[in-house]
Amino acid sequence: MIRVGIVGGTGYTGVELLRILALHPDVAITIVTSRADAGKRVDELYPNLRGFVDAIFVEPSADALAGCDVVFFATPNGTVMRTAEALLARGVKVIDLSADFRLKNPDVWAHWYGEPHVSPQLLEEAVYGLPEVNRALIRSARLIACPGCYPTSVQLALLPLIEARAIRLDRIIADVKSGVSGAGRKAEIPMLMSETGESLKAYSVKGHRHWPEIKQGLDQAAGQDVGLTFVPHLIPMIRGIHATVYAELSAAHGDLQALFEERYRAEPFVDVLPAGSHPDTRNVRGVNRCQIAVHRPMDGNTVVILSVIDNLVKGAAGQAVQNMNLMFGLEETKGLRNIGLYP
Amino acid sequence: MIRVGIVGGTGYTGVELLRILALHPDVAITIVTSRADAGKRVDELYPNLRGFVDAIFVEPSADALAGCDVVFFATPNGTVMRTAEALLARGVKVIDLSADFRLKNPDVWAHWYGEPHVSPQLLEEAVYGLPEVNRALIRSARLIACPGCYPTSVQLALLPLIEARAIRLDRIIADVKSGVSGAGRKAEIPMLMSETGESLKAYSVKGHRHWPEIKQGLDQAAGQDVGLTFVPHLIPMIRGIHATVYAELSAAHGDLQALFEERYRAEPFVDVLPAGSHPDTRNVRGVNRCQIAVHRPMDGNTVVILSVIDNLVKGAAGQAVQNMNLMFGLEETKGLRNIGLYP
Amino acid sequence: MIRVGIVGGTGYTGVELLRILALHPDVAITIVTSRADAGKRVDELYPNLRGFVDAIFVEPSADALAGCDVVFFATPNGTVMRTAEALLARGVKVIDLSADFRLKNPDVWAHWYGEPHVSPQLLEEAVYGLPEVNRALIRSARLIACPGCYPTSVQLALLPLIEARAIRLDRIIADVKSGVSGAGRKAEIPMLMSETGESLKAYSVKGHRHWPEIKQGLDQAAGQDVGLTFVPHLIPMIRGIHATVYAELSAAHGDLQALFEERYRAEPFVDVLPAGSHPDTRNVRGVNRCQIAVHRPMDGNTVVILSVIDNLVKGAAGQAVQNMNLMFGLEETKGLRNIGLYP
Amino acid sequence: MIRVGIVGGTGYTGVELLRILALHPDVAITIVTSRADAGKRVDELYPNLRGFVDAIFVEPSADALAGCDVVFFATPNGTVMRTAEALLARGVKVIDLSADFRLKNPDVWAHWYGEPHVSPQLLEEAVYGLPEVNRALIRSARLIACPGCYPTSVQLALLPLIEARAIRLDRIIADVKSGVSGAGRKAEIPMLMSETGESLKAYSVKGHRHWPEIKQGLDQAAGQDVGLTFVPHLIPMIRGIHATVYAELSAAHGDLQALFEERYRAEPFVDVLPAGSHPDTRNVRGVNRCQIAVHRPMDGNTVVILSVIDNLVKGAAGQAVQNMNLMFGLEETKGLRNIGLYP
Repeated sequence: MIRVGIVGGTGYTGVELLRILALHPDVAITIVTSRADAGKRVDELYPNLRGFVDAIFVEPSADALAGCDVVFFATPNGTVMRTAEALLARGVKVIDLSADFRLKNPDVWAHWYGEPHVSPQLLEEAVYGLPEVNRALIRSARLIACPGCYPTSVQLALLPLIEARAIRLDRIIADVKSGVSGAGRKAEIPMLMSETGESLKAYSVKGHRHWPEIKQGLDQAAGQDVGLTFVPHLIPMIRGIHATVYAELSAAHGDLQALFEERYRAEPFVDVLPAGSHPDTRNVRGVNRCQIAVHRPMDGNTVVILSVIDNLVKGAAGQAVQNMNLMFGLEETKGLRNIGLYP
Repeated sequence: MIRVGIVGGTGYTGVELLRILALHPDVAITIVTSRADAGKRVDELYPNLRGFVDAIFVEPSADALAGCDVVFFATPNGTVMRTAEALLARGVKVIDLSADFRLKNPDVWAHWYGEPHVSPQLLEEAVYGLPEVNRALIRSARLIACPGCYPTSVQLALLPLIEARAIRLDRIIADVKSGVSGAGRKAEIPMLMSETGESLKAYSVKGHRHWPEIKQGLDQAAGQDVGLTFVPHLIPMIRGIHATVYAELSAAHGDLQALFEERYRAEPFVDVLPAGSHPDTRNVRGVNRCQIAVHRPMDGNTVVILSVIDNLVKGAAGQAVQNMNLMFGLEETKGLRNIGLYP
Repeated sequence: MIRVGIVGGTGYTGVELLRILALHPDVAITIVTSRADAGKRVDELYPNLRGFVDAIFVEPSADALAGCDVVFFATPNGTVMRTAEALLARGVKVIDLSADFRLKNPDVWAHWYGEPHVSPQLLEEAVYGLPEVNRALIRSARLIACPGCYPTSVQLALLPLIEARAIRLDRIIADVKSGVSGAGRKAEIPMLMSETGESLKAYSVKGHRHWPEIKQGLDQAAGQDVGLTFVPHLIPMIRGIHATVYAELSAAHGDLQALFEERYRAEPFVDVLPAGSHPDTRNVRGVNRCQIAVHRPMDGNTVVILSVIDNLVKGAAGQAVQNMNLMFGLEETKGLRNIGLYP
Repeated sequence: MIRVGIVGGTGYTGVELLRILALHPDVAITIVTSRADAGKRVDELYPNLRGFVDAIFVEPSADALAGCDVVFFATPNGTVMRTAEALLARGVKVIDLSADFRLKNPDVWAHWYGEPHVSPQLLEEAVYGLPEVNRALIRSARLIACPGCYPTSVQLALLPLIEARAIRLDRIIADVKSGVSGAGRKAEIPMLMSETGESLKAYSVKGHRHWPEIKQGLDQAAGQDVGLTFVPHLIPMIRGIHATVYAELSAAHGDLQALFEERYRAEPFVDVLPAGSHPDTRNVRGVNRCQIAVHRPMDGNTVVILSVIDNLVKGAAGQAVQNMNLMFGLEETKGLRNIGLYP
């Protein structure tokens, strides 16, 4: 059994980790930390876990965590870069669901996250946990930077086209729509149901922290600088991301449907839909899956890719467990073979 | 492996059966019928099932169904009473999710369902599939009448009190709220999102078909005639039922919290919450579980029971699989140990 | 023109007052206060008001408010009882949307609101602003205590029956469902859309502050002590209250439909629906109206009354303006003749 | 008083016309037709109209309609092109909310709407009812083709940029999100709340009927052929459209904020938000208003325009009444000065 610790277990990503890991056959949840709720039963806060998680929130402590084989961090940005090195030194693997190790360039990180990076020496070692790109590296990694939810949906939509040089790289547009759980479990007026229900808005159009992360992934796939516009939107639903990605086809782009099917044929968690499909976000509600459809409106030279994930699963906790499975030599799909909740 | 057939696989109850049974380790889904969609792939209609259900809808046929060990009927009322006998005669067990065999008295059935019952001879044999009441009978049954969603939530709320003679029986009020999936997957204007979203209404206050079903169960538990008022409401959410049940305490009612905990201590799918709790329907979203809390407002002599289920799971497909597990000697929880999707 | 001040203009009740008063032909909005947002343009916070409200939030100040003819308080409980006397002394009328002057007995107030009442001398003068009961008193009042949202819906549902002695008074049950805007515009985790969306729960079953307020109104109508159970529920929608009220009919109750129609025939804002109706809360979305239907399930001796309002309009800001119209001798419906937004 | 007829009064556009016109001071609603509901009271179907609309649905008849000054058609496509000429010949003005007269080229119409246009002779006379473009023509028109909801939001977003030659015209992308009421009041499974709630999807990516309409408007503004990709999305909310429009800036584009403010300074129903704003669709819920914000992400050469309307008001019924006001020489804002419902 893998001894697992979860730091920051009271946010939506944390409870989603608990939901998945509590039923994972090879995992023992050893410690769940929360500063705010230390001393409370986990299932008092989350009654959906009653009978499945018999743990009590504790204060985070390096010694306690050192007894784990792997620790998941579902913490605010800026925490893991202060903690990871000590844990790694004691032989504990770290899977970071925050943004601390996603960007390779510490200056870019500092620009977008508003403070200097305090562990730049780990940035090179940290593996960006997108298995569809970095599977081999993940298997041998000690420190995983789990991708953001928007970056997961957009990169999976674009990788086949960029790798095949099927599109122009200077003007890619990603119009992405997210349910409100992406904003986390924080007491903020703009996330009240009275504010977000029955309404829709774009936000951070000027620039969003996931822009450099997406761009870094696309640049790497392209081997060159990519021009990307990214606009996130807040949708009146709880779970789900829908990326609508636009690019101009290059001269010799070939059969797009075949290109996507080929690229993802062996991927257990990327499902290319039949030609002409329009994925609903609900198809993947609660599961670690990305569904993709590719279109050419009016048979013109613009390609439109539709990509849906559950932001809390393939966009966060599920992908983190997928990484864990790889790191520990388990079957990649273990604990993750579930079916989306419809309706 | 149990060879399973599903008749009427295109409604919400049908697809929910597929979601549960596709991951059940002892089940092989042998046949899925649908008149309207015969010839289509199941996962074309329900893309959440891609990779899990590799079946094609076929026309229902007695011969094909006769090859099954058990057939689930997720059909409109009036179908199973015309079909069950022939299947039973060929040694196939029948689990009926419609209302055809729920009421023991064929005259009452005819009154509420608008036509004579055509298989009254089976009414006595049919077992009402509420395991918390009829577990032993279910184990040996050939024909199960699965309870309705409202009746499941209300009976589980009241059984401990009635069995213990803790309440007066002449004036019980069940104010019950349901998500819209309870109305099924039918093209009807009142169920459009523009009609049901952001709004709330009571319906069928004059009299609802689940009233005689609930009353039959309560009468049986009480061993006498019970006075019941039942008002259903339509709530702007997809899944979930919340029953709020009111009754007057009798003189010697004892400790209510202990009464409920004791009654359901051994039940795998009924979870009595700590005193003072208020269950959210989301606690049980997607899972076969009833959560219950019991209150005495202002410490007076009115007891209020709060009972939540997922109408499609403990209120339909999950309970049907729980019945199947019992009928085939499997562990009762097999294929049903999941955790509610929060948020 | 009536010079109007609004204290606490940043909550949902405050902005709803602004929406209504900005289009009221006899009103000039003179001052809008907010401690938290002083200095900001009102329409910066509420872009729906752009072009209609050209005001800036200011700090509350007695002198500034003294220049008004009437001041609406949309403040937290405990504010107005500390402020009202000084304003009244300077000739300013006060319409209080908080709970400070709703309960006549200061001990009861202290019990439910957790501190002693500091202006008990005003409790007798304050008029409970339910025009359907107190129209004459309101016309000459200086200080109005606007009813709570739940109490408005429940009292209007019961008044005809109680006044006509048509029901037993010892066991009335009010099962009431509210949209989330009733919780106000406060940064609290339980009111996030991820928490309240797609889910339903009861709350405060043990006892809710609106219970003594409803009971006081019913006691007064009955001329005796009434037995009331009140259970509020939180519904995944923004606006709307639906009260489902249960009572036992007394021997000589007469024609219930006629009773309700007669009682409310002259009321501009109470609409008794035809027999057999089930009101949707959306019928009254955004408008100062209560729609009511009365039923006898199974033609038995239980009466069920369905009553819907918009909690922010007839349950708060609209009713407050209705009171203002009466206090200033205007036509009662002025500024309030709007049509519910459907769909 | 203008005698008004409404043909097709039972859809969402029809009832929205009724909501607006019932309170319009210069209008008398003379006739409301509905084949399906002839003989029923209008307010029986739409209880929000009780006390405001005292009409009964009648069968449509040319003679009855001939007594009107103007007839609004809220009918399915293909109806008005068969009816308009006869009415016009009898001196009745026609405001068509369907698509019959939106496209100037009958071959394009036939291609997208699947049948030949039967009144091509009227296509030239018909005025496209976008007052921000065609105000003068509307004033003297007999036949108005009201713009579609998507086309209204996209054209208002782009007109300032195209007229000022501020963008490249060969690759404009309009990613547009709509609430479900845009699909109308039709009994269709995909529009059930269980299907559209809590989920998001794109649709008609291959090609949508509003594409040629938008393109016609942009081509005309540009005086040349414009390259447009248009992808509509279905959002789990009832009302509201949010257009997110992307274009590449041309060399000399000037101050974008000033450009928009200048273009719409005199427009009563287009509201350019302060720089940096992100409009919520709820800002304009229930009102005839378009709110627009213009952004340059990362200060690059892509411009992003955010444009929100209520699809049933500025996208349909409200804009139709705005046209009527112009046609009859009334103040353009008459009956339309309302404030959006927040929250």
